Amino acid sequence: MNPLRVVLVAPRNPLNIGAAARAISNFGFSELRLVNPYQVAFREARSAVKSEHVLRDAREYAALADAVADCALVVGTTSRGPRALEHPLRRVERGGRLIAKRLATAPVALLFGSEKFGLSNDDLSHCHWLMRIPTREEHGSMNLGQAVAVCLYEIVRQPAAVRGTAEPRRAAIAEDATAENLERFTLLLEEVLAESGYVHGEGGGATRLKLRRLVRRLELDAHDAEVWLGMLRQIRWKLISYKQ
Amino acid sequence: MNPLRVVLVAPRNPLNIGAAARAISNFGFSELRLVNPYQVAFREARSAVKSEHVLRDAREYAALADAVADCALVVGTTSRGPRALEHPLRRVERGGRLIAKRLATAPVALLFGSEKFGLSNDDLSHCHWLMRIPTREEHGSMNLGQAVAVCLYEIVRQPAAVRGTAEPRRAAIAEDATAENLERFTLLLEEVLAESGYVHGEGGGATRLKLRRLVRRLELDAHDAEVWLGMLRQIRWKLISYKQ
Repeated sequence: MNPLRVVLVAPRNPLNIGAAARAISNFGFSELRLVNPYQVAFREARSAVKSEHVLRDAREYAALADAVADCALVVGTTSRGPRALEHPLRRVERGGRLIAKRLATAPVALLFGSEKFGLSNDDLSHCHWLMRIPTREEHGSMNLGQAVAVCLYEIVRQPAAVRGTAEPRRAAIAEDATAENLERFTLLLEEVLAESGYVHGEGGGATRLKLRRLVRRLELDAHDAEVWLGMLRQIRWKLISYKQ
Repeated sequence: MNPLRVVLVAPRNPLNIGAAARAISNFGFSELRLVNPYQVAFREARSAVKSEHVLRDAREYAALADAVADCALVVGTTSRGPRALEHPLRRVERGGRLIAKRLATAPVALLFGSEKFGLSNDDLSHCHWLMRIPTREEHGSMNLGQAVAVCLYEIVRQPAAVRGTAEPRRAAIAEDATAENLERFTLLLEEVLAESGYVHGEGGGATRLKLRRLVRRLELDAHDAEVWLGMLRQIRWKLISYKQ
């Protein structure tokens, strides 16, 4: 994969610079570029105790054109709606996919503006298109570090993982309880409920069907079914031993 | 849509509390709950100049059980891999979809642990399942505010927006059991097992955690939870009445 270059234009807050670097590292990217950062902020971020390698390797540029010169695709981020813009605007759900695809063949730059003003019209003019995180209209502007994290997440997210194919549901994929054990569970439960006076002799057929459905709805795995069976056996034993 | 309750357990840093509140507002949610926060941090976050309404309305709890009592689904977040965990672990791509679906019928709690230690085993035992952001193994731990933003984004993101068209989410069917009823179930079960001699006085803490996880894995709906509670109450009554 080609490098994704996260470009912060005129960032002011050292914590945001640090947070951007952390997200870059979290999601397995490595390049941070700063255009005309507030010098004190950059120095402070770099000297932070837990400064990331990303931050130590970050490169500084005086002009945006230089920071994106070696990128085949330049994408800007904005919290503004489409009406105020001259550029094609894509939601991050779609933009993230397009960036991920493009990285297979060429380096891509992803731009974030300053905390206060976002990207200027001049900055935007360097972009092929713009991307927007679907925040609500009344409070659209995100914290810089959080916006970086969401965009990078969208680029690395695996659509296939929605179907649960990416990671097993449990450490070891759980085996389902056998029908035999579920029936055993049902009968034991029925016995315990009879001993407790929860159900009475008459109308037993309907009760059993109800219990059977109730137990099946638990969708137990094999291990948990054994645990519940052990509990019920002990409860039954105790109830019966009291009676004698 | 039902409320999503973002629950921060023992947060230490006022900036993170503020960042969580901001993401909640950005993505159109409103509820922030804090369990046992570092008091100075909470005060500082609240008095910040640009304090969000979310932060002013944030509620504080001494115990996690109380903070999630009115939620039908409780999801924990972790940066640990599946091997270290007793819970089903889902990637956020899938977990976010499940939460979005569940919000159609019931309130959901989404838990984030402290910056330093994450969620404790006791915290985790209140969860139905866990969710993980796909960060890289060597640097898995995200900044708290950024992790909140990514999870909330995944919940509001519209899969259809990848294709450029958005579509409404589907509605789900059965209402889920509240965390309060699941905890009631757990405590009743523990009592019944103690009365039956299945568990003994010593080592009670570990037993409760095991039972809590066992009960959450049943993924009961509201109706079935009531049925099981009724059964357990009757069994307990019978066991106690024999003793006297």
